[in-house]
Amino acid sequence: MRALIRDVFLRHLANPQLDVAADAAALPSAAGQLVFTTDGFIVDPLEFPGGDLGMLAVHGAVNDLAVAGATPKWLSLSCFIEEGFEMARLDRIANSLGQAARDCGVAVVAGDTKVVPRGQGGGLYLSVSGIGWRDPQIRLGIDRIRAGDSILVSGTLGDHGAAVLLARNEFGLHGDLRSDCASVLPFAQAALQTGGLRFMRDPTRGGIATVAHDIAQSTGLRVTLDEARLPLRAAVRGMCEMLGFDPLYLASEGRVVAVIEPGSATRLLSLWQGLPGGAQAAVIGRLQLGLPLVVLRTALGGERLLDELEDDPLPRIC
Amino acid sequence: MRALIRDVFLRHLANPQLDVAADAAALPSAAGQLVFTTDGFIVDPLEFPGGDLGMLAVHGAVNDLAVAGATPKWLSLSCFIEEGFEMARLDRIANSLGQAARDCGVAVVAGDTKVVPRGQGGGLYLSVSGIGWRDPQIRLGIDRIRAGDSILVSGTLGDHGAAVLLARNEFGLHGDLRSDCASVLPFAQAALQTGGLRFMRDPTRGGIATVAHDIAQSTGLRVTLDEARLPLRAAVRGMCEMLGFDPLYLASEGRVVAVIEPGSATRLLSLWQGLPGGAQAAVIGRLQLGLPLVVLRTALGGERLLDELEDDPLPRIC
Repeated sequence: MRALIRDVFLRHLANPQLDVAADAAALPSAAGQLVFTTDGFIVDPLEFPGGDLGMLAVHGAVNDLAVAGATPKWLSLSCFIEEGFEMARLDRIANSLGQAARDCGVAVVAGDTKVVPRGQGGGLYLSVSGIGWRDPQIRLGIDRIRAGDSILVSGTLGDHGAAVLLARNEFGLHGDLRSDCASVLPFAQAALQTGGLRFMRDPTRGGIATVAHDIAQSTGLRVTLDEARLPLRAAVRGMCEMLGFDPLYLASEGRVVAVIEPGSATRLLSLWQGLPGGAQAAVIGRLQLGLPLVVLRTALGGERLLDELEDDPLPRIC
Repeated sequence: MRALIRDVFLRHLANPQLDVAADAAALPSAAGQLVFTTDGFIVDPLEFPGGDLGMLAVHGAVNDLAVAGATPKWLSLSCFIEEGFEMARLDRIANSLGQAARDCGVAVVAGDTKVVPRGQGGGLYLSVSGIGWRDPQIRLGIDRIRAGDSILVSGTLGDHGAAVLLARNEFGLHGDLRSDCASVLPFAQAALQTGGLRFMRDPTRGGIATVAHDIAQSTGLRVTLDEARLPLRAAVRGMCEMLGFDPLYLASEGRVVAVIEPGSATRLLSLWQGLPGGAQAAVIGRLQLGLPLVVLRTALGGERLLDELEDDPLPRIC
């Protein structure tokens, strides 16, 4: 995917504002900074414990703006509906999308619908673009990260990926796992109020391991994650052990990863832990001088390299 | 489609900025008016005489902004790529998309790519959102149209629909028809400089007949189109006669329809005819008090009702 984006799209579309390493583009504007993002959503199944495609799409766009330091304002919605798609299901998903937008304080102000022939659509695909405003004083970016910085996560990891996987009923497993699909705006705003914030990202497709790799590759620093501190639900851990998945590569859809000056980590941790849904927030690792690798410090004190995700073992997860 | 949008999406997403009759949303902003649009593109075949999906997607977004009176600035691109899609083809389409963006003076500043499993994608679907700025003095809208106003079109009608249809090779017909796929920005800007402009729209899916129906239904006025003045290529007319299509329902992708005060129609016509590609521009009809119908005044002086498009006879046309 990375090669596809670099070799095909970036080559043809190169311009100063397009940063393929970022989830949102900051645009010059007279009144604050305009921030613009887009995302496609193809999750299977379309409805899963804890959410559905509609809610996922709103939170995906809102969260991309939130981790860019922006306040989300407006969304656009482009729908690709497969001919014969059940109307009651479309209605449930649209209802959930509208509710999520209201909950996040954003409005869907533009839309388009295309019907694709039966057998060419996978049911329903959505693309959501979002616009937000950012205080021009805010300085965030992967390039601001320094050796010594701390890495925090706002809650348990991999719940979304695990819940969607279970909902496919492919493995004969059952459980009460729910997606963490939610807005991270309160967490992002708390982080912005904490001095020393360097960078935020939501660990969606490819999970925390992929965010860690992006950081290592962009900064040239070593990322060390502490296994004992990673917030993982027992059910997620158990499912991964049974199926041979590594939970560090599973998507979250309502978590934010923050990189912050070490002196501010404790303050951000306590702010996050005080927010609804933030009890499991944790300081999970740090940046160090060294080779740009991602290293997991195991509970027993050993070290294990976390490889970059090569092939996505979980298509249609978000 | 109209019912689907109204009954499902509008009901769940209602908010003051969402106008489902408009192709772009105008948003409050300190510096001029921000205009935001989105569109999905599913054309089959993906490459056709005169264009391809990439160029079509850029022009679609640029044209929605242009007819809203805005200057297009930034685009986002969301791609749904079917597993196994030919890379050389993707490269050609991305190249064409980048070229079209440069030609239109816009930059693609945000993007996302999802790969959908083989058999669930129709090759390649694109969704493009666009942001532009509009002079806050500009007042355009279907609600500004008055009885007596003139209707102009900037060039020949239905070329895109006819070219895509021929490119499918389903009918054993061959010809040298080319899509009109292009930016309408020069035409829209010329219209904005002409006093008395009421409304613009690009006659894409459903053609000029569908734009006329939208106007009749929104204003409560009768729309009369003069058959003798409709700019139609002989090849489009011939193909439609052979296959039983009405060219007035075929999509254009590089034309603009303008409604203007009658006293300004001649001035706009001469401005348009002076632009590259504008030689076929014409005054094609007018608004009248009467039942909100669309009436075609035939070359022989008779009248024929143009029905609203019920079922789209041409899926995947844009």
